[in-house]
Amino acid sequence: MKIISQNSSFGGMQSVFSHDSDVNKCEMTFAVYVPPKAIQEPCPVVWYLSGLTCTHANVMDKGEYRRMASQLGLIVVCPDTSPRGNDVPDELTNWQMGKGAGFYLNATETPWSDHYQMYDYVVDELPALVSEQFRVDMSRQGIFGHSMGGHGAMTIALKNPDRFKSCSAFAPIVAPSSADWSQPAFEKYLGADEAAWRQYDACALVEDGARFAEFLIDQGKADNFLEKGLRPWLFEEAVKRTEIDLTLRMHERYDHSYYFISTFMDDHLKWHAERLG
Amino acid sequence: MKIISQNSSFGGMQSVFSHDSDVNKCEMTFAVYVPPKAIQEPCPVVWYLSGLTCTHANVMDKGEYRRMASQLGLIVVCPDTSPRGNDVPDELTNWQMGKGAGFYLNATETPWSDHYQMYDYVVDELPALVSEQFRVDMSRQGIFGHSMGGHGAMTIALKNPDRFKSCSAFAPIVAPSSADWSQPAFEKYLGADEAAWRQYDACALVEDGARFAEFLIDQGKADNFLEKGLRPWLFEEAVKRTEIDLTLRMHERYDHSYYFISTFMDDHLKWHAERLG
Repeated sequence: MKIISQNSSFGGMQSVFSHDSDVNKCEMTFAVYVPPKAIQEPCPVVWYLSGLTCTHANVMDKGEYRRMASQLGLIVVCPDTSPRGNDVPDELTNWQMGKGAGFYLNATETPWSDHYQMYDYVVDELPALVSEQFRVDMSRQGIFGHSMGGHGAMTIALKNPDRFKSCSAFAPIVAPSSADWSQPAFEKYLGADEAAWRQYDACALVEDGARFAEFLIDQGKADNFLEKGLRPWLFEEAVKRTEIDLTLRMHERYDHSYYFISTFMDDHLKWHAERLG
Repeated sequence: MKIISQNSSFGGMQSVFSHDSDVNKCEMTFAVYVPPKAIQEPCPVVWYLSGLTCTHANVMDKGEYRRMASQLGLIVVCPDTSPRGNDVPDELTNWQMGKGAGFYLNATETPWSDHYQMYDYVVDELPALVSEQFRVDMSRQGIFGHSMGGHGAMTIALKNPDRFKSCSAFAPIVAPSSADWSQPAFEKYLGADEAAWRQYDACALVEDGARFAEFLIDQGKADNFLEKGLRPWLFEEAVKRTEIDLTLRMHERYDHSYYFISTFMDDHLKWHAERLG
């Protein structure tokens, strides 16, 4: 693990590290905020998954999570959104595919499958590294994210309900199999058989029987991607005849930006802290 | 005034505008956060001046001021740090001179004097525009800033004690006339006669009799620029035999970055709000 940067912030430490990823076969970068409380005792961890085009840095710069994470004693880990480097395939003119658009899945199709194993990376490889290197109580994990990262958080929680005690999302892509900006990527990463897509689609997972106790979703009504890309009402519909508890808050005037995310960041961190004990 | 962007945030509105500046003879960009309280009544305004290499955007992205400004009912205006555009002279390989390094002074030397009139811009032109366009109570103004912007805030407060009711700074350059990263710029902007520099040097202003009721200064002890560039002890020394009240807080482990600024942003906004009533 290589240190890229370390800065004191709100009494704790905001760090950026890189490391060689076995599953993605490239160097990966991630950010970790460690609150001052971690000096005394192992702290719970929340994983923040970012959206299309982002790296670890967007939420680190603009997410405004450190004040509340410091106060609540939460470790916050922010992975990158895809494998990186010159060896990694990409579609240079398409921001919805390749680098910056890993969709938190394990690609099965060439040329993507060699590197794009973001599901395994976020669920297994990175947690193993983090639990080794930081004072984390791995029995208390939460996961959240924005847009493509909201999709990542929700699908990962639904597939690992014993691992994660809490899940929330800002403007998540709840049904990427049929959303205009993700459907083409799913076909390229996973092949033409749509049955293979269902394990990476929150609505389909719920239809197929996956369960997670409760979700908090915040969504801006002035979000340009709401109608075609995000459609939280599809998830509302999917959970209706289940015992899944969904708190969906629709906010007038808020868009898809970090101005929206930072506004509700405190609420999300409190949601996780309450459930992580 | 042209709208560059507008985003809802913490119940208020974060906007970026551009306008033609008469004094700087170029298009200037600035950011304004308007809290929800401004719908009901005119609100006090705090001016945030940024440091070397910055634009209006750095603090807007990383300063984390909106939550507390919303709560306290403060309008926050963040100007750019210099004139901009192809017609504006610059030293391309020198980040301590020209664009991004206006030092909040009125240049008197060619080729700089045609455009670099940042003192008049920040003290007169921009406030006139802001008071016209927003619900601002101009009888309640505070000013603060970081590094070069801390220098700007302190010198402007010292020269305009009737205008500003509050002043604070993060890691300010308190004596730019003799600091390694500002002295060459002062010579180029203002000429070789050091007497002309004193009106833009907080320590010299105090020595020459300028007064302001009280200052809050936060400074990180792990700041790489502390010893040669910032030297807050010089200001401490300068105010010793005056009635100026200085609260200087030195912080272990904090550096010069926005991780430091955002950590203490709440304290500064509260400092201003208490004095602006």
